[in-house]
Amino acid sequence: MSGATGTRVGEFAPVPAAAPAARTVRVALAGCGVVGGNLLRLIADQRTSMQREHAVRLEVVRVLVRDPAKARATPLLAERFTADPAELLASAPDVVVEAMGGAEPALSLARRTLARGGAFVTANKQLIAAHGAELAGLARRHGGRLDFEAAVGGGIPILRVLRDSLPPDGVTAVRGILNGTTNFLLCALEGGVTFADALAEARRLGFAEADPGRDLSGRDAADKLRILAWLAFGAEPARISVHTRGVLPDPARYSADAAALGGVTRLVAECALTTRGPVASVEPWVVAPGSELGAVSRERNLVSLTTRESGDLALAGPGAGGAPTASVLLADVLHGAGRLPVRSDAFAAAVDARELKWLLSVPRSPSLPRLLPAVLRRARVAPERLELDGADGVARLLLRPTTRARAEALASLLSSDEAPVCLSRVANL
Amino acid sequence: MSGATGTRVGEFAPVPAAAPAARTVRVALAGCGVVGGNLLRLIADQRTSMQREHAVRLEVVRVLVRDPAKARATPLLAERFTADPAELLASAPDVVVEAMGGAEPALSLARRTLARGGAFVTANKQLIAAHGAELAGLARRHGGRLDFEAAVGGGIPILRVLRDSLPPDGVTAVRGILNGTTNFLLCALEGGVTFADALAEARRLGFAEADPGRDLSGRDAADKLRILAWLAFGAEPARISVHTRGVLPDPARYSADAAALGGVTRLVAECALTTRGPVASVEPWVVAPGSELGAVSRERNLVSLTTRESGDLALAGPGAGGAPTASVLLADVLHGAGRLPVRSDAFAAAVDARELKWLLSVPRSPSLPRLLPAVLRRARVAPERLELDGADGVARLLLRPTTRARAEALASLLSSDEAPVCLSRVANL
Repeated sequence: MSGATGTRVGEFAPVPAAAPAARTVRVALAGCGVVGGNLLRLIADQRTSMQREHAVRLEVVRVLVRDPAKARATPLLAERFTADPAELLASAPDVVVEAMGGAEPALSLARRTLARGGAFVTANKQLIAAHGAELAGLARRHGGRLDFEAAVGGGIPILRVLRDSLPPDGVTAVRGILNGTTNFLLCALEGGVTFADALAEARRLGFAEADPGRDLSGRDAADKLRILAWLAFGAEPARISVHTRGVLPDPARYSADAAALGGVTRLVAECALTTRGPVASVEPWVVAPGSELGAVSRERNLVSLTTRESGDLALAGPGAGGAPTASVLLADVLHGAGRLPVRSDAFAAAVDARELKWLLSVPRSPSLPRLLPAVLRRARVAPERLELDGADGVARLLLRPTTRARAEALASLLSSDEAPVCLSRVANL
Repeated sequence: MSGATGTRVGEFAPVPAAAPAARTVRVALAGCGVVGGNLLRLIADQRTSMQREHAVRLEVVRVLVRDPAKARATPLLAERFTADPAELLASAPDVVVEAMGGAEPALSLARRTLARGGAFVTANKQLIAAHGAELAGLARRHGGRLDFEAAVGGGIPILRVLRDSLPPDGVTAVRGILNGTTNFLLCALEGGVTFADALAEARRLGFAEADPGRDLSGRDAADKLRILAWLAFGAEPARISVHTRGVLPDPARYSADAAALGGVTRLVAECALTTRGPVASVEPWVVAPGSELGAVSRERNLVSLTTRESGDLALAGPGAGGAPTASVLLADVLHGAGRLPVRSDAFAAAVDARELKWLLSVPRSPSLPRLLPAVLRRARVAPERLELDGADGVARLLLRPTTRARAEALASLLSSDEAPVCLSRVANL
């Protein structure tokens, strides 16, 4: 790091942790399950960095739960919990975050929040698939804000990309693996596990609920696809009919069918502009194992966009889990910021002390075998494999894991203008 | 599409093409090469959709070029072109878009635009890598706006994801293939093409300039990595020292070295928080051919993020080309919008008329061979392959390309409660 020190001067002077300019944002949270609980933890963990980078202090003023008396491992006082939606809204929140799922009280909370110009952030795909257009209209008319990144694609920020990062009319097709539960189960079946064992494992890891019916039938993916089609093509999500066939009643047979063609099964959601108009479907596809869709493993999700001007874009990430969903909710709460960083103390000079694998090659010379042992000693590195007589006249040396500094010391000892060394870092092969 | 018709009522009533509310945004463009020319074309092509969806009319008020007299295939009047940067700024633009590259007049244009609170949108990675922190400071102090999505990752909206879609302190490592030219050449070498032929082909396709030195040396990727490290970790880009080794002087040897280990070479840019602090490097890596990095082919780019809470995210897309870059510039010009769609006429009811490939399976029954010909005739589909005696007691039928409707008709003719049909769509295998 050229001349970097712990403290910086100039444009990016460090902002003190308790910057006086930090604005307090009052957050009301509906739901304190896996996602809501993770969000409370994140808000507590990242208090300092949010003040520093967003000049924002989030205060959780009220949490709506079924049973306020239940013991919870949260940093919040018990009196902040309530079972009454009216009390949640009466707490004068700047942002209402909804992480309950289901129809009510989610819809009422959204309507009331947006109708008075507030911000509503939700992970509720069913709510947005059914009422997104109405709620967006409310937000527009009353100057409110509606964000729902966490509703689609788990930790993948696909909605923000569709809303902010592509020009209008930019997308001609959206294709994706949107249900992590189904993908986890299909991957387990590919690996020879029985469906019962796969489902037990998915439940143990928190990737499947007691009843995976909404997942395996394709209905969950269809709701998410409605939201994607809305943002990509502008249709009201509730009016988009998605041709939906899941992998029921026999997911294992779908897997065996694909194997008979040398492929693997993926439950793929697609909306596309065809010559006859836009179409939308969720159905099992047979794809090549190494293809973009086939390479999506376990609970991961993938969304690929075909664009008019930007070719094909693909985004992949975790499709399920409380932490990724909470992380995306928090980003939505902070959105509107879109700020460039103000922090500056993160890049103190650091030496890369990691032990990595390296491959060196050098044109063969008669003296090399004689010189090499001393050179290796001097650079304090050890070979894992050595090929002095490559067919192309090049000697190759795979090093045991060592630092970049040592690998480069060896390279410079062996290198000359006539016989330059090529040094590559070796990833897990 | 359930009950959809050409016209819609409700929250998403169509906005007339010449909506009176459309705000005019005056755009001054610096540079009219491949990227600038594509941007002018895009602005003309998407006039209607921008009015409808963003309520914005972009007016290109001035274009800065070296030779205003040169004949150009643009929809603009000749008097809009100028060779004088002062005249560009005097045109009272709302947004200055810089697509020239290089140090000047880009830096002066940026400083002057931001110092008076204007919006500056650029594709210039060298400018941002060298002066990003200063310019961001100017924008912050004067209420201006600085956007540079097109500077990194070609058509991949990675900067927007880092700025808006992750909570603070969310990223622990950024890893990517950021130079499309080098990746194109390395992929050609893998395929057995000589370096000279590969370079000629890359130039012919517009993926390499006359001198690919900045690309192959890793300097281009290092500038982009500085910008990524800035947004991920907050360090001033100019102060981040990137350990840079490219694939010079002999890209073909790097490729042969990787092949000797059964891998492929990729020029990988990485910044990561290690136990000793943050480190940044651009260097050749040997990676497995089917791995995330190894699967990046030709001029494509890929950025993968390791996050604290959201697991690993990966974004892939076109890394080079005038159209993707112009498309990203246009999205940056329109940014701040972040609007949910207002259009509503896009999803007229459409039947999926595409001819796709399908695979059906059905538990074997004694009557199946006898029934099948008549059923196929009735559904008007033809088999490409038929396996009546699968080892698992299942008969499988691969259809010649046909519509979903016909494939489903066949499935429902063959299906029964005791012997349900599994129907899968078959992608290119």
